Amino acid sequence: MSGNVFGEALNITTFGESHGAAIGVTIDGLEAGFPLDLDMLQKEMNRRRPGGNPLATPRKESDTIQILSGMFDGLTTGAPLTIVLFNTNQNSADYTNIAEVFRPGHADWTWYKKFTVRDWRGSGRASGRETAARVAAGAVAKQVLAVHGIQVTAGITRIGTITALSDSPWEERHLNILSCPDQVAATKMAELIENLRAHGDSVGGIIECHIDGLWPGIGEPVFDKLTALLAHAMLSIGAVKGIEFGDGFAAAGMYGSQFNDSMVMGSDEPKFITNHAGGTLGGISTGEQVIFRIAMKPTSSISLPQKTVNKKGEEEIIEVHGRHDPCICLRAVPVVEAMAALVILDLIYRQNRRSGHAEQLGI
Amino acid sequence: MSGNVFGEALNITTFGESHGAAIGVTIDGLEAGFPLDLDMLQKEMNRRRPGGNPLATPRKESDTIQILSGMFDGLTTGAPLTIVLFNTNQNSADYTNIAEVFRPGHADWTWYKKFTVRDWRGSGRASGRETAARVAAGAVAKQVLAVHGIQVTAGITRIGTITALSDSPWEERHLNILSCPDQVAATKMAELIENLRAHGDSVGGIIECHIDGLWPGIGEPVFDKLTALLAHAMLSIGAVKGIEFGDGFAAAGMYGSQFNDSMVMGSDEPKFITNHAGGTLGGISTGEQVIFRIAMKPTSSISLPQKTVNKKGEEEIIEVHGRHDPCICLRAVPVVEAMAALVILDLIYRQNRRSGHAEQLGI
Amino acid sequence: MSGNVFGEALNITTFGESHGAAIGVTIDGLEAGFPLDLDMLQKEMNRRRPGGNPLATPRKESDTIQILSGMFDGLTTGAPLTIVLFNTNQNSADYTNIAEVFRPGHADWTWYKKFTVRDWRGSGRASGRETAARVAAGAVAKQVLAVHGIQVTAGITRIGTITALSDSPWEERHLNILSCPDQVAATKMAELIENLRAHGDSVGGIIECHIDGLWPGIGEPVFDKLTALLAHAMLSIGAVKGIEFGDGFAAAGMYGSQFNDSMVMGSDEPKFITNHAGGTLGGISTGEQVIFRIAMKPTSSISLPQKTVNKKGEEEIIEVHGRHDPCICLRAVPVVEAMAALVILDLIYRQNRRSGHAEQLGI
Amino acid sequence: MSGNVFGEALNITTFGESHGAAIGVTIDGLEAGFPLDLDMLQKEMNRRRPGGNPLATPRKESDTIQILSGMFDGLTTGAPLTIVLFNTNQNSADYTNIAEVFRPGHADWTWYKKFTVRDWRGSGRASGRETAARVAAGAVAKQVLAVHGIQVTAGITRIGTITALSDSPWEERHLNILSCPDQVAATKMAELIENLRAHGDSVGGIIECHIDGLWPGIGEPVFDKLTALLAHAMLSIGAVKGIEFGDGFAAAGMYGSQFNDSMVMGSDEPKFITNHAGGTLGGISTGEQVIFRIAMKPTSSISLPQKTVNKKGEEEIIEVHGRHDPCICLRAVPVVEAMAALVILDLIYRQNRRSGHAEQLGI
Repeated sequence: MSGNVFGEALNITTFGESHGAAIGVTIDGLEAGFPLDLDMLQKEMNRRRPGGNPLATPRKESDTIQILSGMFDGLTTGAPLTIVLFNTNQNSADYTNIAEVFRPGHADWTWYKKFTVRDWRGSGRASGRETAARVAAGAVAKQVLAVHGIQVTAGITRIGTITALSDSPWEERHLNILSCPDQVAATKMAELIENLRAHGDSVGGIIECHIDGLWPGIGEPVFDKLTALLAHAMLSIGAVKGIEFGDGFAAAGMYGSQFNDSMVMGSDEPKFITNHAGGTLGGISTGEQVIFRIAMKPTSSISLPQKTVNKKGEEEIIEVHGRHDPCICLRAVPVVEAMAALVILDLIYRQNRRSGHAEQLGI
Repeated sequence: MSGNVFGEALNITTFGESHGAAIGVTIDGLEAGFPLDLDMLQKEMNRRRPGGNPLATPRKESDTIQILSGMFDGLTTGAPLTIVLFNTNQNSADYTNIAEVFRPGHADWTWYKKFTVRDWRGSGRASGRETAARVAAGAVAKQVLAVHGIQVTAGITRIGTITALSDSPWEERHLNILSCPDQVAATKMAELIENLRAHGDSVGGIIECHIDGLWPGIGEPVFDKLTALLAHAMLSIGAVKGIEFGDGFAAAGMYGSQFNDSMVMGSDEPKFITNHAGGTLGGISTGEQVIFRIAMKPTSSISLPQKTVNKKGEEEIIEVHGRHDPCICLRAVPVVEAMAALVILDLIYRQNRRSGHAEQLGI
Repeated sequence: MSGNVFGEALNITTFGESHGAAIGVTIDGLEAGFPLDLDMLQKEMNRRRPGGNPLATPRKESDTIQILSGMFDGLTTGAPLTIVLFNTNQNSADYTNIAEVFRPGHADWTWYKKFTVRDWRGSGRASGRETAARVAAGAVAKQVLAVHGIQVTAGITRIGTITALSDSPWEERHLNILSCPDQVAATKMAELIENLRAHGDSVGGIIECHIDGLWPGIGEPVFDKLTALLAHAMLSIGAVKGIEFGDGFAAAGMYGSQFNDSMVMGSDEPKFITNHAGGTLGGISTGEQVIFRIAMKPTSSISLPQKTVNKKGEEEIIEVHGRHDPCICLRAVPVVEAMAALVILDLIYRQNRRSGHAEQLGI
Repeated sequence: MSGNVFGEALNITTFGESHGAAIGVTIDGLEAGFPLDLDMLQKEMNRRRPGGNPLATPRKESDTIQILSGMFDGLTTGAPLTIVLFNTNQNSADYTNIAEVFRPGHADWTWYKKFTVRDWRGSGRASGRETAARVAAGAVAKQVLAVHGIQVTAGITRIGTITALSDSPWEERHLNILSCPDQVAATKMAELIENLRAHGDSVGGIIECHIDGLWPGIGEPVFDKLTALLAHAMLSIGAVKGIEFGDGFAAAGMYGSQFNDSMVMGSDEPKFITNHAGGTLGGISTGEQVIFRIAMKPTSSISLPQKTVNKKGEEEIIEVHGRHDPCICLRAVPVVEAMAALVILDLIYRQNRRSGHAEQLGI
């Protein structure tokens, strides 16, 4: 496998470049007979869509999905489900001046060293536009998970130095366009972003993700722990620089007597009275909320002057103009949810193959 | 695949439980004709070996490796290389009292929900002892990488609230048994650990890892980024709760104009004047040092009383005695190096298949 | 993985149904910088295209390929290459009468038992139309192999009881529309096929495939032998009922002293004076021609009356009308070549990863 | 993956060489809680064991299995199950004369070209001894399948020119040491083999395999058809030169009206009145007996003089002495059963992941 396929029992293959003909995804391994809601799928696309958020890039893409295969009479058939988005508003002329130069913070240099040939139009395959395909696939996974009562939700809890209060009401994320649970912080974050756009700069942030309703026992032991696959999935998103589960890096400063989550009996099953672990033990779900946070770096494209080098080996000063997001976190929120949903559904399928069998055996 | 296989072009399969007959690993995909240094391999095992460090568990295992296959006349043959360690000092009687109860912080509950059947002797398959197999495989990978001039080194930079100075000399990690670059901090860390052992408590910490000598262009695009695979590998280590690359979580508070690493011309190739990114762009190596940190939770086994639940659904108070590490970081250092080395070599092999080909084609 | 992905270092994912919106393929792992000849690619499509052969189905599809991703300025970029063919001439009305009944010889019954939901239009995903995607991917692989001097060619050597003479000139396959090296036999085969079409019946046959120019050492040991992967690939083609390499089933009746191929010195390397083995030893290429034959069953769709059962569990007599091939071998020839080419290129890439590395090491 | 791992939901990794320390296998993905019968496992080993059959090699190996991991209290735990056989009777001195020469029919030449380094002792990794590990894994799979009422049985139906009558009673295979259902033919086969051993020659044969009790719907569509995976598995056995399903190559000479299997209603489900297809349609099980045959070449090691070439490029005459099987079919019978059982169980697990899920969803 060469890095464009993700997942095992349920796997996705994404394809397409920022300014190519289309972006798309093939989902293989999906169950048959599932009534797919295409309106919900389109709505998820719209959450990530460029042009859909005043704080994000002004590039306008309708991101209208088209199903090429895998459905019949409104149901999935068990055959690969392929979803494509044809690109319409690509503006490659914006990029001709950077065809020969390596932009700081971008993958220009590393892809050039890797492949020699480089599709420089809008960052080509390395563009964040590839994540549209992930959102489409994730929307499918979310629908299946919803039937099981599993919800995957993400929101912004920090932009630059502005941090949401930790006891903010999670369900009020939708009251602002940043998906931030703290309305006061959200207002300040929006101001910061507008300010940075005006100055041609960008900023990083933190996205938090909650997985609710997941039963205990999900995650494969040793190498394919739930945490390991989520970390793999999240670090595969372009600008992500770190991930932490539960108390995360703070756990480094804690004692076992503080960190360990005690168990008590619930109404019918044991439960935990705290959740420092963030919903996993030994990498397998405990039945508590799975909670993790990812750190995103500032958007690499800034119009302030930066030192860099071109393909001829000459140093030059570059100003990256074009239509960019001052903070990539906003449009990354649905991408985080999508990837988390895909990991969870893959692991449920992987668990099913054994447990389904054991039930048949009556053991 | 079911979670006990890791890697693609180079893959490892580990097997064995803490108190079973043996722990082992099969490495598949290794190049033929490599002169393997078994003494170095044994030395790596000794770094992680229980009983080898006064600050760690007093369980004594010689961890003597035995090669079952894949070598002939001192050379690898291209056939799977299997390395086993027979367990000798298991003391299952220590564990009989916890056969029926779920220890807080351990995988007891989650593995029980996953598999129903549970090998409770010394945590069975969920034990950190499984990582001995990884260290063996990693030692092989390190030897191959060393021929290319690539070094993978890790050290402890934080235990509890004691943090190593960031400008400590990395090469002086070997002057203390904590692999800490800061000798003053190391002394305090050792005191803290001894103190906690006396009180039956444990503590978390941070391990930092450096990959030096890696050329640019390594890492597969999109899903199998170098960062994504390292995150997957690290979060597959039992007690790891987070990972960050380069500036990591601090990037969330930075501007693009601060974070972007400018490029200048070096003697023959472009280079970077800073390394906020931590050695990757778009998930592919830049040629700069790859640097990441992982957060480890406190050891779950503590002898202080904790509330928990048993298999019958009764609440009880548990004190986990036995031979445990007050801080798991010490013995995790070689595990971190091992997993990082395996990821790097796998990705180099994956890169080779294309570049080797292109050379043959003369394109 | 769920059966729609094939290959490792080079993998393809196919998608699409006979009467859905499109058929397509994503090729992942392809080298960057390869100048892809789209005219050759379209010509390969035309060899398999319905409507392109008077002895085959009269369904007309232009099978015009469209590249959605992975190319820039005429070169592959190393990103996934997606090729689609939009369906234009599907005639689902032909099939409404078989929506509720299981056609003998078809996958109707087995897919129904597997998935419950069934896209019955033109056999849906189980249709031979899926192989168009494979021909597209195979054409790409053939172009890369050609640069290495490797040729994959297939032809028909038997239809019903009519068998091509074994010493027929292989290069004269192109003189008839059956790709048969024996012109006299080809004429008789064509007559037989026309005759069967008139009577509403069908017939089976044998396709032989030659791989020339492959150097020794290709094929992975033990489970991924060259022979094993070719067998996997060929038996994944709908109507194939068997495969044999070299002397194949005749080897069952031979002595070791007859079957073993003796070696002598060639101009610079050892060579074999016979090729009973068919170009592999221990499943790895010898440097001689790789030769295999596959048996294809008669086309399942015949208009003669057949007994069968419907979804309600009632027995009925069915006559399958529609536009069918009386002998599927004709259009399967390019599919056999395509799959063989994909296997060879995958195995070359897999070999490269190690050998490329060894060269760097100077060992 | 590098060819020593087979299977997906259930995968095996084999390791070990003919004259190395041990041969072994790790099975990953097995369900937990299965009561494994180790006596049955050892009996299966004995069926393949050298020294266990007067018509086979006189090399004596006890082939006593040792479980290194994955069991506790007589049950599988869901952790990887590793089984090893330590080699005891290797006689490498027998092979020193062939360290520098390429034996005709063997993998000596091809492995040398692939790996350069070669473990020549008893053919090293390319030895049939590797299949002992497969028999061990297959015995585990057979036990699980047996609980489902699925039986995998194989027998010899041809040796040289001696063919068993096709209506011989399958269940009487155990009355002779060839596992041949025709006792008269078996006697002649035994005479032929003894005769060939006396003359230093060898002979090929055909093994037939039946899978009974498999329900319809097993097999993944398109690339991982049941037939495709069985073909992959069988052609991965050293001396196999071909495979055919149901009527196999004879289907090439048949009309659709002859070959198609008509359906009628059984007591509760549709059934087929013939089984030309051999138990699959579209590569997925029909519910009828899955039946296939494989062709095996004569044993490559013969003591008659043969022309060949050595590593220095000199031609020489070789006589391969040592302890060899005049006909490899005898000991291959349990290997065929083992690989078929592993394929079936893998595909059942792969099917479970979806169907188990659909049941939970109530759709």
